[in-house]
Amino acid sequence: MDLGVARLIRDRWLEYGFDSARLVPYDVLLAYPSRDPNRLSGVSLLEADGTVVVESQQQEAGISDPEAEPPFNAYSASGEVQGDLVYVNFARAEDFQTLVRDVGVDPTGKICIARYGKIFRGNKAKLAAQFGCAGLILYSDPEQCVADGWPVWPDGWMMPSTGVQRGNVKDSTWKGDSLTPFYPANEYAYRLDEQDANLSAIPVHPISYGVAREILRNMAGPEAPVEWQGGLDITYHLGPGYTGPASSRTVRLVVNQDREVRTTYNVIGTIRGAVEPDRYVIVGNHHDAWVYGSVDPSSGTAVMLELGRALGKLKAEGWRPRRTLVFGSWGAEEQGLIGSTEFVEDYIRSLQERTVAYLNCDSAAAGNFSIAMWASPILHSLIREAAKKVPDPHEPSKSLYDTWRLKRPEEEGNPDTRPKIGRLGSGTDFTPFFQHAGITALDMWNDIDPAFGFGYPLYHSAYETFDLPDRFIDPDWTVHQSVGRLWGEMAVTLADALVLPLDVRDYAETLQKMMDELRDEHGSRLAAQSIGLEHLESAIANFTRATTTFHQSLGTVDKLNPLAVRAVNDRLMKLEGAFIDPLGLPDRPWYRHVAFAPSSVNSYAGQSFPGLADALFDIDNVNPADLAARWELVRRQLAVTTFTVQSAANTLVNNLF
Amino acid sequence: MDLGVARLIRDRWLEYGFDSARLVPYDVLLAYPSRDPNRLSGVSLLEADGTVVVESQQQEAGISDPEAEPPFNAYSASGEVQGDLVYVNFARAEDFQTLVRDVGVDPTGKICIARYGKIFRGNKAKLAAQFGCAGLILYSDPEQCVADGWPVWPDGWMMPSTGVQRGNVKDSTWKGDSLTPFYPANEYAYRLDEQDANLSAIPVHPISYGVAREILRNMAGPEAPVEWQGGLDITYHLGPGYTGPASSRTVRLVVNQDREVRTTYNVIGTIRGAVEPDRYVIVGNHHDAWVYGSVDPSSGTAVMLELGRALGKLKAEGWRPRRTLVFGSWGAEEQGLIGSTEFVEDYIRSLQERTVAYLNCDSAAAGNFSIAMWASPILHSLIREAAKKVPDPHEPSKSLYDTWRLKRPEEEGNPDTRPKIGRLGSGTDFTPFFQHAGITALDMWNDIDPAFGFGYPLYHSAYETFDLPDRFIDPDWTVHQSVGRLWGEMAVTLADALVLPLDVRDYAETLQKMMDELRDEHGSRLAAQSIGLEHLESAIANFTRATTTFHQSLGTVDKLNPLAVRAVNDRLMKLEGAFIDPLGLPDRPWYRHVAFAPSSVNSYAGQSFPGLADALFDIDNVNPADLAARWELVRRQLAVTTFTVQSAANTLVNNLF
Repeated sequence: MDLGVARLIRDRWLEYGFDSARLVPYDVLLAYPSRDPNRLSGVSLLEADGTVVVESQQQEAGISDPEAEPPFNAYSASGEVQGDLVYVNFARAEDFQTLVRDVGVDPTGKICIARYGKIFRGNKAKLAAQFGCAGLILYSDPEQCVADGWPVWPDGWMMPSTGVQRGNVKDSTWKGDSLTPFYPANEYAYRLDEQDANLSAIPVHPISYGVAREILRNMAGPEAPVEWQGGLDITYHLGPGYTGPASSRTVRLVVNQDREVRTTYNVIGTIRGAVEPDRYVIVGNHHDAWVYGSVDPSSGTAVMLELGRALGKLKAEGWRPRRTLVFGSWGAEEQGLIGSTEFVEDYIRSLQERTVAYLNCDSAAAGNFSIAMWASPILHSLIREAAKKVPDPHEPSKSLYDTWRLKRPEEEGNPDTRPKIGRLGSGTDFTPFFQHAGITALDMWNDIDPAFGFGYPLYHSAYETFDLPDRFIDPDWTVHQSVGRLWGEMAVTLADALVLPLDVRDYAETLQKMMDELRDEHGSRLAAQSIGLEHLESAIANFTRATTTFHQSLGTVDKLNPLAVRAVNDRLMKLEGAFIDPLGLPDRPWYRHVAFAPSSVNSYAGQSFPGLADALFDIDNVNPADLAARWELVRRQLAVTTFTVQSAANTLVNNLF
Repeated sequence: MDLGVARLIRDRWLEYGFDSARLVPYDVLLAYPSRDPNRLSGVSLLEADGTVVVESQQQEAGISDPEAEPPFNAYSASGEVQGDLVYVNFARAEDFQTLVRDVGVDPTGKICIARYGKIFRGNKAKLAAQFGCAGLILYSDPEQCVADGWPVWPDGWMMPSTGVQRGNVKDSTWKGDSLTPFYPANEYAYRLDEQDANLSAIPVHPISYGVAREILRNMAGPEAPVEWQGGLDITYHLGPGYTGPASSRTVRLVVNQDREVRTTYNVIGTIRGAVEPDRYVIVGNHHDAWVYGSVDPSSGTAVMLELGRALGKLKAEGWRPRRTLVFGSWGAEEQGLIGSTEFVEDYIRSLQERTVAYLNCDSAAAGNFSIAMWASPILHSLIREAAKKVPDPHEPSKSLYDTWRLKRPEEEGNPDTRPKIGRLGSGTDFTPFFQHAGITALDMWNDIDPAFGFGYPLYHSAYETFDLPDRFIDPDWTVHQSVGRLWGEMAVTLADALVLPLDVRDYAETLQKMMDELRDEHGSRLAAQSIGLEHLESAIANFTRATTTFHQSLGTVDKLNPLAVRAVNDRLMKLEGAFIDPLGLPDRPWYRHVAFAPSSVNSYAGQSFPGLADALFDIDNVNPADLAARWELVRRQLAVTTFTVQSAANTLVNNLF
């Protein structure tokens, strides 16, 4: 388990001079691949007589470490299925719809093979089960992990044919421990039966593109649509099954995993505030990894440790922040944001009362192209100002802000553009803070060139070793350094400023944009049902007015009156929480932020006004028998969204009555 | 509607010098008895040939006011049923169980007749429907409304044979507007269909004991148990039907009610705080009534107006409270706490952030015996200290505290006893504040001698006129005055104190008592299932320790440091909210206070640890097929209760990590 690394982090923080650092353990359901030689997992292509044509390996080529975990998809169902293969592209909702509605290939009872990418793999597994697949094979297609002309590992940092992406395939109904939704997994927790925990009903297993190529070759059935053709040197067919001399071949998928309730250890460190010790600025990163995890999460862990060392040094020199700085090093993130979620669930009442913001950084240096940022709108201004103070890692004469806004512009083609800041979805440890508890949050990393069209190629493979950052991504370590400077600048500003540097006007601007998007996408569809958007527009207008008035009042607040300052700071700190609906979103009540959630069909992506969006999702194709109920859900969610925006506006108003 | 009285109250407050007073309307489902002569409601006893033996009247004898509403039970189903009668005592769960299990009389399909009393009439209606009754007749038995030897109205204030208690029979799954649970009933609210609103499935109608006597006479079937014998000069039988010459008689119950969404008006007034205007102390009372309502609510409304006048006078003399005083005059309380609930639901985020406490007084002078008080434990000390400063209305040389503690002792027989303060259930407008929003609250009135065994006899009848307080309850108006003084003392102390006069140690004391009660009542039953109480005991011990430490820290807090004072005040203010579980109680998620709720079988009564209590309710008699699930619910609720107590303790701790 992660006790060793947790202790190491704790000891470092104590050594750096933190006021406290301690382990905070939870007992959570974890999934492990069986190592029993009779109960291994894998995928094989078989002749009719059982002869093995090709089979997946228990470890990436070149990795001989007996402790390195073999490729697996955590929380897959265990089991064995054998039969015909169907290719389902990325296993997105729209892919299955294309397959079933347009092409007429039925995945029911088949072993489906999908390439990684576009959406969270947990959504792929869920969709595959919903569409009747008997099992799911995931593989890394070269189109998603090898850029043209770039060498593969170990000569470069593209994915070689033997690499496999690990990762959990948990349902996204709630994050954290599968057995204890909403409550911490402590010694007296009530635990669900595993069968009630929304875990994958079908076996799922990942393979390399070397093995995938052999399995995808010679498939029968129609040629896959042109956008479904991947990067292998074959023509992709949909199946089912094989053609020609291969027509009697079948695929066997075997998964053997063991699930156990084990202890995972978070580490929590603090540098206490001098003036407002009961207000927290939290920085966080996880410390668990698939195999070595030099990027995910160690690039972030290294930066967080360095940030702690630097702040410890400042403290030794006499500085102490106005507010308390809390460092969180989370366990079991890879198994479903478990450590952070259990911590948030455990201390939710206190965290909601005390936390100014949560600043997450997972893979600090997934690439060396540019900062990528997702944040609550209320942090936009802080982020921009902080980036102006940090030099670019490659062009130190320029600010990070200047290079970032050109590399990732908010408005393409506008030379004066601000940098793009995304809307938070899920995928890492900010999720429980922001989506469940309503705590202002951001997430960032340094990413690879979006022209690649994918994240860092060796992600979650056994090749993600120290060589990856050291030889390829960041040989002079300046990218890591710049992330640390940005992170520290934001954290210290939040911790030290008399009036919190949160700008409510940016929240209004984002809501206005979301309103425009909603109107553009669904306005006429809603109008056809006599569902007007005027009340939501009015609530957003009220919100905008309230933020303008509130922001103006900050200019006149008596800075020498501690109560007046605290009162405005508390409103700034609590605005995010006003977007939380205790009833949560339809069919996924653990997600409670009415303005932002992970998309229901891709939990990596941020979905705006998610209750409404879920109700409207694919509504043009809803079964007529279910349509009236879906429109009722739309009406209800529109009312809830409107009310929540108005409620949030009210929290900024002095004289409500 | 209530617009007239709402405007009157608003105008008074403005005249008194309040900083603001305005109407806050909601559009809510209200129930009215039909006045159409062809669609009247009533109960009649019929001969086989249809001859009417006796029938209920459209108005109490002596009342000729055409605007006075006839007796009815709001939100009854409309309909007509005719058939045999069964007597079900108070229509409590235990009464139906006695009837069905012990006596073997089946109420299925019968018209049941129950006396008012012991539990909320809405629970009677729900239980009657659950036990299969086709309709329910409610009546005021003399045992519950006439004290021996006391004259009846108009010679005294006991209930005459012609008086009828009105009142709603709403299900208690949620309070407020039936169509908009959890959200305010505003112009864009999503409204449920009425059939989804948990309204009574059967007709229910109230009658006088004069009519009930005729209907109960000559009933067939076994003699009712001795405790079921009421105060009428007949022998009560259980039925079904009649005996002897009356054997062919049947009862007809006709209910015609119209439901409409109409506007109800709350009035909200404020006297703004000078130092902490963003902290609210709220006093509240409702202004709607059944017919004249001289006691309910006008005795409280009069006192609240007088309190407003007095505070306005203080303000004119230069006083302004430290915190904002908010006055709430609620509409449509009688139809299910509608005005207060919609207001709380509308402003819940702001109210939870800003409200120190809500002090409710409904029927200020329901009697002239003694103060009766129900409160969050954190208010106990404030209440006791305030009562020491107010003279007793009958013995002005003594304090209210001294007479109260002797008339309603916490410990019978102890001459040094403190006065009894009850645990909050429901029944009036504190409910949404306390049970739904987690805002510290109290409820009080001056009650009649508990030796009577019942509340004030003319309750909800048309005889509840100005004469009732003026001639009988409080001819010199000193009882009203003393309630006003107590209310004002508490409100002003909460509004003005530098450190809030909330004592967390009393919360710990109450939780310890609740733990003892739980162990006494269910300890061995739980032990037999290997369910230990040690984690809950440990959480309560932690809570106790945290309150002790916190209270000690109040002694050393730097009173000249406004931030330090605000920080402890915020913890005091927010402790109650930490007992709120956003998921709510099983099967009634609108109720969210884990420590206190209205009893599921009597929403007037306070139930401690309600999630656990509901799970354990009558568990010895649960159907074997359902028993395992019930014990799982017990285990789950025990974990939730334990976690919530521990969470509340954590909010008082400075250095959590």
